[in-house]
Amino acid sequence: MHLFWLLLLLTMSGLLSAQEASEVAEEPTLAGLQSSIEAAQSSLTMIWLVITGALVFFMQAGFAMVEVGLTRAKNAANIIMKNLMDFAVGSVAFFFVGWGLMYGSTASGWIGTDHFALMGYSPDEITNILRNWFFQVVFAATAATIVSGAMAERTKFVSYLLYSVFISAIVYPISGHWIWGGGWLSEMGFHDFAGSTVVHSVGGWAALVGAILLGPRLGKYVKLPDGKVKVRAILGHNLPLAALGVFILWFGWYGFNPGSTLDGNSVDIGWVAVTTTLGASTGAVGAMIMSWILFKKPDTSMSLNGALAGLVAITAPTYVVEPWAAIVIGLIGGILVVLSVEFFDKVLHIDDPVGAISVHGVCGVWGTLSVGLFANRPNDKIVGLFYNGSFHQLGVQTLGVVTVFIWVVVTMGAFFFIVRQTVGLRVDEKEELQGLDITEHAAEAYPGFQIFSNM
Amino acid sequence: MHLFWLLLLLTMSGLLSAQEASEVAEEPTLAGLQSSIEAAQSSLTMIWLVITGALVFFMQAGFAMVEVGLTRAKNAANIIMKNLMDFAVGSVAFFFVGWGLMYGSTASGWIGTDHFALMGYSPDEITNILRNWFFQVVFAATAATIVSGAMAERTKFVSYLLYSVFISAIVYPISGHWIWGGGWLSEMGFHDFAGSTVVHSVGGWAALVGAILLGPRLGKYVKLPDGKVKVRAILGHNLPLAALGVFILWFGWYGFNPGSTLDGNSVDIGWVAVTTTLGASTGAVGAMIMSWILFKKPDTSMSLNGALAGLVAITAPTYVVEPWAAIVIGLIGGILVVLSVEFFDKVLHIDDPVGAISVHGVCGVWGTLSVGLFANRPNDKIVGLFYNGSFHQLGVQTLGVVTVFIWVVVTMGAFFFIVRQTVGLRVDEKEELQGLDITEHAAEAYPGFQIFSNM
Amino acid sequence: MHLFWLLLLLTMSGLLSAQEASEVAEEPTLAGLQSSIEAAQSSLTMIWLVITGALVFFMQAGFAMVEVGLTRAKNAANIIMKNLMDFAVGSVAFFFVGWGLMYGSTASGWIGTDHFALMGYSPDEITNILRNWFFQVVFAATAATIVSGAMAERTKFVSYLLYSVFISAIVYPISGHWIWGGGWLSEMGFHDFAGSTVVHSVGGWAALVGAILLGPRLGKYVKLPDGKVKVRAILGHNLPLAALGVFILWFGWYGFNPGSTLDGNSVDIGWVAVTTTLGASTGAVGAMIMSWILFKKPDTSMSLNGALAGLVAITAPTYVVEPWAAIVIGLIGGILVVLSVEFFDKVLHIDDPVGAISVHGVCGVWGTLSVGLFANRPNDKIVGLFYNGSFHQLGVQTLGVVTVFIWVVVTMGAFFFIVRQTVGLRVDEKEELQGLDITEHAAEAYPGFQIFSNM
Repeated sequence: MHLFWLLLLLTMSGLLSAQEASEVAEEPTLAGLQSSIEAAQSSLTMIWLVITGALVFFMQAGFAMVEVGLTRAKNAANIIMKNLMDFAVGSVAFFFVGWGLMYGSTASGWIGTDHFALMGYSPDEITNILRNWFFQVVFAATAATIVSGAMAERTKFVSYLLYSVFISAIVYPISGHWIWGGGWLSEMGFHDFAGSTVVHSVGGWAALVGAILLGPRLGKYVKLPDGKVKVRAILGHNLPLAALGVFILWFGWYGFNPGSTLDGNSVDIGWVAVTTTLGASTGAVGAMIMSWILFKKPDTSMSLNGALAGLVAITAPTYVVEPWAAIVIGLIGGILVVLSVEFFDKVLHIDDPVGAISVHGVCGVWGTLSVGLFANRPNDKIVGLFYNGSFHQLGVQTLGVVTVFIWVVVTMGAFFFIVRQTVGLRVDEKEELQGLDITEHAAEAYPGFQIFSNM
Repeated sequence: MHLFWLLLLLTMSGLLSAQEASEVAEEPTLAGLQSSIEAAQSSLTMIWLVITGALVFFMQAGFAMVEVGLTRAKNAANIIMKNLMDFAVGSVAFFFVGWGLMYGSTASGWIGTDHFALMGYSPDEITNILRNWFFQVVFAATAATIVSGAMAERTKFVSYLLYSVFISAIVYPISGHWIWGGGWLSEMGFHDFAGSTVVHSVGGWAALVGAILLGPRLGKYVKLPDGKVKVRAILGHNLPLAALGVFILWFGWYGFNPGSTLDGNSVDIGWVAVTTTLGASTGAVGAMIMSWILFKKPDTSMSLNGALAGLVAITAPTYVVEPWAAIVIGLIGGILVVLSVEFFDKVLHIDDPVGAISVHGVCGVWGTLSVGLFANRPNDKIVGLFYNGSFHQLGVQTLGVVTVFIWVVVTMGAFFFIVRQTVGLRVDEKEELQGLDITEHAAEAYPGFQIFSNM
Repeated sequence: MHLFWLLLLLTMSGLLSAQEASEVAEEPTLAGLQSSIEAAQSSLTMIWLVITGALVFFMQAGFAMVEVGLTRAKNAANIIMKNLMDFAVGSVAFFFVGWGLMYGSTASGWIGTDHFALMGYSPDEITNILRNWFFQVVFAATAATIVSGAMAERTKFVSYLLYSVFISAIVYPISGHWIWGGGWLSEMGFHDFAGSTVVHSVGGWAALVGAILLGPRLGKYVKLPDGKVKVRAILGHNLPLAALGVFILWFGWYGFNPGSTLDGNSVDIGWVAVTTTLGASTGAVGAMIMSWILFKKPDTSMSLNGALAGLVAITAPTYVVEPWAAIVIGLIGGILVVLSVEFFDKVLHIDDPVGAISVHGVCGVWGTLSVGLFANRPNDKIVGLFYNGSFHQLGVQTLGVVTVFIWVVVTMGAFFFIVRQTVGLRVDEKEELQGLDITEHAAEAYPGFQIFSNM
């Protein structure tokens, strides 16, 4: 409450002058002081997690702007709607179901089994549980929203809503349980500090399955008479908004990674902020250079994706690697994302309008594996190949990467398949040509602006 | 100061090695430690209020983008100007006059009477007072800026400046004094945690009065020969910017609500963050469903307004209700905003380009009343009808809602009436058709873009 | 790590119930409690600097949006690229070289000589050093990015990359060393709290040199037959994005200034937030009034620049001046920026598309000098002319302003000159007319939108 006026009055009325207060107050005791200190430590974590959680929430704006910017104007209102509603329905799904599956008690190590709808906590526990839930729900929402970009410009809105519930309630929480919820992968020593695998690869692989089952946008891959396929670039309509989105995501990542210390008293918060910064920077540099080599020009949207690639890659190892390693990991992430985007587009002909599969799936894997190579935290028993010559950590990381890939591909594949056979996954041709804004929402993103009719 | 180099030098020069320091330092005493702990607790509140205050400041960007996005391109520069200058002149007015009226000493409980221009504080008090002023000025600015949207596309800029001074200096602070400044409503037990009434309804009712006295935009309501009125939709020109604005507002709300604990040591910060999140989410869901029913399509701008409606509604009860109640309160807020927007537009023919009256006025009332229904904080003596079967809290909440409505309608009505008779409230027809950017500011928002001439 | 599940399990399994824990725990001692308190104080600074540092990082988005908004659509992708890559390459350059020059050990007071690539710190030091590096790198990046706007729409991208490395590695750190790194200016008592000179004037003077050596954009100054010069306004293409950028910058400034306490336990954080707010507000007011007088209309982009001018001006004195002085300093900054923009454009014919020289260079000087006039912090021995009647502080401030001007003009002048003679500083005429998006990046910012061909 805004009780502050009361304190003001008391102060001014002189009833509680400093001297009198100290006369009235009990003598401090060692135990009393200790408990005050513990309360302050707990408060540090409280404000730290709520602020960093808010930063992670803000990444929703970043994802929305990147996706809007890199697609066509006729679908912008639909994209906004998806990015708004995946959080809205996803957070409710995570409240009722996901949290319990992820952080509920576990016997098997495979799945949490209680605390659905946050029930069953004692009054003492609940304030910290709510704090933790807030910090976790924004991560669940990040995983969900990654998929939106890869399935942009052709997905039925109602199916996207169903998907948002499914991934937030079931898919993300269960593999999350294995790694962050006390499950079997965490017991094996798998390390994913802030979610290269838990969040980004889960989103990236769901995006992959979705993009395959949807098929490419009309006109994206044109079969020529000689049997070859002509790959057409479908340009995004608003690069400044996409750039703004990337800056917002990078900003939000200072909640995502440093916040994942889960402790406002951690002495390593600055460490994580530094490796995050360097990884993002060299990711942009790597992608710029790679695009310069491949396309003869430093490509703007590739460089933007490079920053994201670096961020995704550094997310798992941020806490366990040294700054120089962050520079290397980000740089490789940036190079990788360009090659991967080209590979999925030109070779596999999987249509991913924003490059989500490459940024989040592929670079999520790279970041997770990089822990097995560059980690150097002996105190936490996380040391990689380059420091102890052992393939152990790399093996565990690989196991996690593979299992999560299988988990997501199987469950999301089954889900999208069932949706396709029932509700339908894709809008019809006429709707796609006209744009989803009109057909799905009776909306227009830019009334008044003259827009070329074929865009 | 960036004195950090000094500490670095000292550290490195070995003059202050840890051992020597502890030899030199006095023995710690219980009283000394207690005072250190109290200083740390105070610092927690300091950084908490400055960071959350900054988040609330950022909501100015959100309001600006929502209003720009939901109106026409020809008025965008004027809208930017209003949203920038209402903070700029409002903060100065709140400094010289508003703060004193709101948080100055009160005998009557109706109005504060000292501390204008922050005068009259002792040197000991001033640092915390400045901290509090910063956190409060951004709330005052929020109330002021709400009105801008409802009066968009037809208000004289100079009159808007006068309005900004009046609401920030007089109207907002006085009703604020009743509720947050130790005034009569707070003494009766009226509870409005973060300002559903203090901030949002004040803004919303001022918007209502302003929109009525201005009249609708040209062409908005066309009288047909048969006496009926044809209601024309005037579409906003940039939905992505409006969406960005909503995300920014939601993000900023994590300062608005959790920051209103006014205490970085509060154990309920996480609680507030959770109810805020759930209220916003179900607000979006409620509006989406309601628009789907009414218009046969899930409407993008209604869903965006639904998220805001949920946020406004949960602002008063966020601290006193449980998560399940937040879900219900937000959902009802989202449904309500759609019905209310339709009602003001289709039935009352009051032209509110962005729906500010419904989002902030109507949902502010709903949120304030919901305290009387769902509150369950016996320790703070705030318990609603559904928990104790008593209409007492609901009665007090209703009294506050009604009094503030009367206060704002009377004062703002008188103010806008006087302005209309003297300076003039509205631009002339030719200016309105041409757009306020050219006529008021000799500016153009999008030079180079081809824009349809009737927009 | 997300170890939180472990704590949860422990809590629930009852192994660590509160009673048992306290039985097991050692008795608290005075020394132990004191060290816990010191750790909490250190943690306060840790989370404070990482959060405020993230806010300062976000200013990159602000600069990008301001520059994009105030220039033409055909160069928007290039501008994004510059604003992304100056941080990306600049942060790496600051890591390897800049930090050591700025905060390395100094014998002479002129230049730091060790700790390149953050080497040579003990394990105990490194966590706080990393925290400090993060907070400093975002300031270095701010200085670098200021220049981008003044050199917009005509600079070769590759030369801009070289520039970004040079200023981040050499120019900014060395003058920064004199003032914040323990160098000779700081020893003389020069006071620049958050960088009116260290950051903004350095950026502003580099912008001045760059704009002069580049020359104006084609068609900006047209020589008439009678020898006079016709000054043409080249309008920016997206005022709403520019406004968003200004709001983001203002928001980020709550990291920039309050964060520069460098101490989460400072009691003056609120003080700094208040003077920052008032300075920004009256800066906007001053520029609005001045533009109203000069142009007969309140100008939108001038008022936006006025807010930035107020912020730049209050950056040096924010900690040492009282709120009333902040109001005056900001107001003068706002007036000054309008006059200065007109002077550089109409009189000197130096083409600065966004007004960076005036906002950051000129108002940076004004803010730095204002310390010598308005400062009133006797405890810190910083008192200005208006309080002690002595010209001493004003003299020191002037000395710093002049030396930094010479340093930047000489080094950046030499650098830009060499680049011009070798790599080339400016794109050729055809490229400039076509726009740098196509010619430098094979990109288009707004595919689909119809844009007038001469823009």
